Amino acid sequence: MTTSRLEAFSAGVIAIIVTIMVLELRAPAQPTWPALLKVAPNLLSYGLSFLMVAIMWVNHHHLIHVAREATARLLWSNLNLLFWMSLVPFVTDFLGKNYRQPMAVALYGVDLALCGSSFFLLRAELARQASADTNLVEYHAAMQRKNLISAALYFLSVPLAYVSVYASFFIFALIPAMYFLPEKKLVGKEN
Amino acid sequence: MTTSRLEAFSAGVIAIIVTIMVLELRAPAQPTWPALLKVAPNLLSYGLSFLMVAIMWVNHHHLIHVAREATARLLWSNLNLLFWMSLVPFVTDFLGKNYRQPMAVALYGVDLALCGSSFFLLRAELARQASADTNLVEYHAAMQRKNLISAALYFLSVPLAYVSVYASFFIFALIPAMYFLPEKKLVGKEN
Amino acid sequence: MTTSRLEAFSAGVIAIIVTIMVLELRAPAQPTWPALLKVAPNLLSYGLSFLMVAIMWVNHHHLIHVAREATARLLWSNLNLLFWMSLVPFVTDFLGKNYRQPMAVALYGVDLALCGSSFFLLRAELARQASADTNLVEYHAAMQRKNLISAALYFLSVPLAYVSVYASFFIFALIPAMYFLPEKKLVGKEN
Amino acid sequence: MTTSRLEAFSAGVIAIIVTIMVLELRAPAQPTWPALLKVAPNLLSYGLSFLMVAIMWVNHHHLIHVAREATARLLWSNLNLLFWMSLVPFVTDFLGKNYRQPMAVALYGVDLALCGSSFFLLRAELARQASADTNLVEYHAAMQRKNLISAALYFLSVPLAYVSVYASFFIFALIPAMYFLPEKKLVGKEN
Repeated sequence: MTTSRLEAFSAGVIAIIVTIMVLELRAPAQPTWPALLKVAPNLLSYGLSFLMVAIMWVNHHHLIHVAREATARLLWSNLNLLFWMSLVPFVTDFLGKNYRQPMAVALYGVDLALCGSSFFLLRAELARQASADTNLVEYHAAMQRKNLISAALYFLSVPLAYVSVYASFFIFALIPAMYFLPEKKLVGKEN
Repeated sequence: MTTSRLEAFSAGVIAIIVTIMVLELRAPAQPTWPALLKVAPNLLSYGLSFLMVAIMWVNHHHLIHVAREATARLLWSNLNLLFWMSLVPFVTDFLGKNYRQPMAVALYGVDLALCGSSFFLLRAELARQASADTNLVEYHAAMQRKNLISAALYFLSVPLAYVSVYASFFIFALIPAMYFLPEKKLVGKEN
Repeated sequence: MTTSRLEAFSAGVIAIIVTIMVLELRAPAQPTWPALLKVAPNLLSYGLSFLMVAIMWVNHHHLIHVAREATARLLWSNLNLLFWMSLVPFVTDFLGKNYRQPMAVALYGVDLALCGSSFFLLRAELARQASADTNLVEYHAAMQRKNLISAALYFLSVPLAYVSVYASFFIFALIPAMYFLPEKKLVGKEN
Repeated sequence: MTTSRLEAFSAGVIAIIVTIMVLELRAPAQPTWPALLKVAPNLLSYGLSFLMVAIMWVNHHHLIHVAREATARLLWSNLNLLFWMSLVPFVTDFLGKNYRQPMAVALYGVDLALCGSSFFLLRAELARQASADTNLVEYHAAMQRKNLISAALYFLSVPLAYVSVYASFFIFALIPAMYFLPEKKLVGKEN
């Protein structure tokens, strides 16, 4: 398998994940603005997940882009990531319906933490492939640090939900913000 | 990220949006033509949204086609547009069930107005990228005017729904018609 | 827009249509084979529609392949076809639940007839584009005849459903069979 | 039709199959961990099917990759495979709800057995195409043996479910494991 095939398939799966979430949104029972306000948590958790998956897509694209070879290890690290990402619509729906319940917030955090860990594994394989290229190894090490921080924060959001769900929501909002900050660019690799 | 990757991902998301809307259509309870007539508003609002999203797809394709570079700003302007487009199935379903209720018509108008505004932002970024090319700048300015009119009309449809939902429907029908008129072509850019 | 972009978008939409139909299938209430037998009509109508859409995909691919230029007329003939194809999951679900009711069978026939007519319009545009190429014009004329017959038969299936639904089912089965017969090949155009 | 078009369409369908399954997952009624435990069988059967379809995707990619020509026979063998694969979300949903019922386990086995048989037919067509190339014929023969074993095991899982559903589950787990073992590579064909 070429890495471009792998990337096209992944982009397809991610495009579907980001879009089908909207099917979980149920129109309000009454056509009034107060009734719409009641489904606002669902809309907001959809918006949050759209942002999360969009960021993952951007990162994933950059990640696969520097892959040298579509080894079996890369293939399965990638499918592992896609699996946890595919659960985002499920935990999003649950969160939207129970956004004040620690358990729903914690479950959302668990899935994001597993996505973050999967990114970590995927990049570890890429770093292994890049072992001969000092420039690339440094790039992966720098990105891996960022990856580690966000995965750790997502894991932290799980117990934190039982203290205050708003603390967990703060983490969910913080990490996307972190990804908007300018990154160490890999000069000459990006096309 | 290359603009072609960006375009492929967007086309994928738009293809899904336009197609999954059909899942919201519920078959009539009784297998009779009068029963089918009762779901006709759902079918009509599906048809309207199919047309709207199809036009957005065509415009989006032309837009991304003249992009020079997939900057972060372009990427996120585009994801912003896709987000509001992804809500079309939600507002369509709501409209189909409550097509005589001002609030449902207004909500549909709100989402289209936000899609129109997102197109405006996206093209603004493209115009910025094209700043050195007079021909392209003129093209963007001409298209931006059209964009501004349709976004303004969509925003107008929101309060208008409370006067008469049919006035809003007239706007929804008018704008697609406007897009069928021949456009200023960008000679030599289209491939 | 290039014809290859048009084709990729259409293939995406068709892939989604053919696949999401399975979401309409409801697992039997009881885990017993007799209970499964009760959902057999749904499974069969899904199978039939899968075949129908698969054939349309193959034909569509061949059709777009000989397109010279992605004119606005071609674009909108194509979107018209995709719209009627996108209703296949809706009429399939309805047919599966009411396969002995003339009205459900007739509605299924109506949608297929509209798909067939859309193919006719799409090919008419292609024939217009090919007007300078005698070989291609002949090819389109030959294919158009086949197209006309199947569209006519689908239209016939609508009133026929009120005589006997089995007569309509016979037509639904006949046309796919017709498409499996060897076709006039366009030598040297296929790649 | 080129084999690359065939592959892109198939990859699209498979990406949708693997992703829409998550829509069948219903969030637990109560936001508590014990309530989540009750939907664990659904999550597990989703995980199993994700793995199954992922393996089929990898195999399918390798398969189509060595295709010489997109003959009608290849096209329809492939659509036959996609049809049975498209039923995976249906049988997965049924399995998740009735994982201790022999009938649900048997039905899951039936669909996997039919997928396995379809792979067999698809590869038979490829072997036929490769008849002049000894190296390729040997490769297909070796792969076909593996294919035959897994299809046979899947068929075996059907009656076995009536003895013990766990015996069938053992088979479902065994075959993916088998596909993780290193394979006979086709030197110089893979790109």
